[in-house]
Amino acid sequence: MDKIRVGICGYGNLGRGVESEIGKNPDMELVAVFTRRKPVESLKIKAVVPVIHVDDAAEWTDKIDVMILCGGSANDLPRQGAAFAKLFNVIDSFDTHAKIPEYLKAVDRSAKEGGNISIISVGWDPGLFSLMRLYMGSILPLGKTYTFWGKGVSQGHSDAIRGIDGVADAVQYTIPVPDAVERIRSGENPDLSAREKHTRLCYVAAEPNADLGRIESEIKNMPNYFSDYDTTVNFITKDELKARHGKLPHGGSVIHAGKTGEDCKHSLEFSIKLGSNPEFTSSVLICFARAAYKLSEKGETGARTVFDIPPILLCADEEKTVKNLL
Amino acid sequence: MDKIRVGICGYGNLGRGVESEIGKNPDMELVAVFTRRKPVESLKIKAVVPVIHVDDAAEWTDKIDVMILCGGSANDLPRQGAAFAKLFNVIDSFDTHAKIPEYLKAVDRSAKEGGNISIISVGWDPGLFSLMRLYMGSILPLGKTYTFWGKGVSQGHSDAIRGIDGVADAVQYTIPVPDAVERIRSGENPDLSAREKHTRLCYVAAEPNADLGRIESEIKNMPNYFSDYDTTVNFITKDELKARHGKLPHGGSVIHAGKTGEDCKHSLEFSIKLGSNPEFTSSVLICFARAAYKLSEKGETGARTVFDIPPILLCADEEKTVKNLL
Repeated sequence: MDKIRVGICGYGNLGRGVESEIGKNPDMELVAVFTRRKPVESLKIKAVVPVIHVDDAAEWTDKIDVMILCGGSANDLPRQGAAFAKLFNVIDSFDTHAKIPEYLKAVDRSAKEGGNISIISVGWDPGLFSLMRLYMGSILPLGKTYTFWGKGVSQGHSDAIRGIDGVADAVQYTIPVPDAVERIRSGENPDLSAREKHTRLCYVAAEPNADLGRIESEIKNMPNYFSDYDTTVNFITKDELKARHGKLPHGGSVIHAGKTGEDCKHSLEFSIKLGSNPEFTSSVLICFARAAYKLSEKGETGARTVFDIPPILLCADEEKTVKNLL
Repeated sequence: MDKIRVGICGYGNLGRGVESEIGKNPDMELVAVFTRRKPVESLKIKAVVPVIHVDDAAEWTDKIDVMILCGGSANDLPRQGAAFAKLFNVIDSFDTHAKIPEYLKAVDRSAKEGGNISIISVGWDPGLFSLMRLYMGSILPLGKTYTFWGKGVSQGHSDAIRGIDGVADAVQYTIPVPDAVERIRSGENPDLSAREKHTRLCYVAAEPNADLGRIESEIKNMPNYFSDYDTTVNFITKDELKARHGKLPHGGSVIHAGKTGEDCKHSLEFSIKLGSNPEFTSSVLICFARAAYKLSEKGETGARTVFDIPPILLCADEEKTVKNLL
C-alpha cells in the first residue's frame, strides 16, 4: 500500500511533535518540513527529509497528500489556512474559538477552489473535547457540560507574563478547583464563575533588581488573563524555572451532568492526563490527517470540523476496527 | 419545522425508556408503539399514541421516519433487524459482539433494498464506548485500551442465575476490580485476565427448601458467565431483593494508556455513572435516530454503525453546535 505522504509546515513544539509521532502510524510517512526561516539550511530537524521554504510550497502539491499546519492561531494560521487550502489537503489546530465560524468560511472557499479537503481546529480543545461535548450534550439534552483544563502549562498565559517589564521568563499552570469538579461529579449542576472553576499558578524569573511587587500586581490585575482568577505568583530563579518547569504536561476533563425520567441522574466524564501536550496534540492532528486524505480520495472538497468526520475515517484498518472495537 | 416521527418496536425496559426520553428532544415525536402482544389492547403504555401489532407495521411506512427496535439481541433483533430495514429507517442496539459483522451485512442488504438507513449496535457498549475505543486507539496507536463495566446490573447474568433450579429471582452486579483500574490510570499497561478485571456479586432469592449449597455451586461453576470470575453469592428474601435491588443503575469506563516520544505516558479515560441503564441507552438510541433521519433525507441507504456517523448529525441545531461546542 502507498503511504499517506505528510508535510509539516512550521517547526515549533507542534511541528516537532508531528515529526516525532508520525512514525507510530505505519500507513503514513513524513516527506518534507516547510519553514519561513531563511536560509532554510539554518533550520536543523531530526527527520531525514528536505527542509523547504514556505514560499516554494506550491512546487510540492503532487508530492504531498496532507499538509499539517503547525503554526499558531494568532499570527500564522489566519494567513496560512486559506492559502494552503488552495494547494493541499490541510489539517490545522486553529483555536481562537470566537473566530472559528469566520475562519471556517474562508478556508472552505479556498479548499473548494483548490479541490482539496481542510479539517480545521483539530487538537484536544478544540478537537477531542469538542467531540465529547457534542456526544454528551446530544445524548442527554437535559443537562449541563463543564470543561476543566489542567493541571497544565498554558502557553498563552506564560507568554502574557513574559511580556511584562522586568520578567526574564515565566511558566503558568492552569489548575481546576477540586471542589468544583467534585460537585459536578456527584451530580450537581452548579453555575460556576471563571474563578470558581480554575486557579492560576505562576512561576516567574525576574530580571535582576526588578520590582517584584509591581510585577506581581501587573500579573494579578491583567484583564482576561488573570484578573478573573485567584492567582498565585512565585518568584524563582531562571535555573529553577528551567529545571523544574521545563516540561509541558497538561490535562483536563469534560463532565456532563444530565437527567432522564423524572429526576434520574447520570454523569459522563472524559478526562485526559498528558505527559506532553504538544506530542498528544500532534497525535490528534496526525490521525485526522488520515481522515482528510480519505475524504479527498472520495472526491470531497471544502472545509470540515472534527464534528463532520465519520470516526471510522480516523482508523488505519477500518475492517479490523469494526470487528474488534465495536 | 416538521418533527422527526419515531416509532418504538418492543415495549420492555428499553421501549419504555425511549417513550420516557423522546420528549426531551423538541425536534422529535413518538407516533406509535409496535408490539407482538395479542390482542394489542392488552399492552398498556404511558404515551398517548396508538399501539399497533408488529404484523401491521408495513401500513405505517409513510407515517414513521425512524423505527427504534427495542427488542433483545438473542431472539428479537436477528429476526426483526433485516425485516424492518426494508420498511423503515431503523435504529437497534444489537449487542452480540461476535455476530455484528454478519448482522451488519444482512441489514445492509435489506436497507438498500428498501431505500432506507439502518444504524445498528447503538447504545453505550456497543455504541458510545466503541466510539471512545476508536478515538483513543486512533490518536495514540502505541497503547492499550481497557474497558470496565459496572458497578451495575447485568441482565444477562441475572437471567442466567434465574434459570437455575430452585432460584425464585436474582440480581447480578458486575464490579470492576479497583486495583486494576488504578494500575491503568497510573500509566501501567498490564495484561489482565477476566478475573483480574471484574468480580461478580449475586443476590439470590431461593425457593422454599431449595438446596442453597447446590445453587451457589451451580452459579460459581457456570461456564462463560461465572467460572472465570471471583463470584460472591448472597441469599436474601424476595422482598429484600425487590426493595434493595430493583433499580437498574450501571456504569463503566474505557481507559487508554498510550505513549508518545521515547517514553512519554498519556492516559485517556471515559467514565459513565448511570442512574438508569435503560433510560440512558434509550437516550443514545434517540440521538442516533436523528442521524439516521438526516442521512436518509440526504438520499443515503444501507446499514451503518456508530463509527460511520459524522457526529454533527446527532445534533438538533448544527449551526449552534459549531458555534458553541467547538
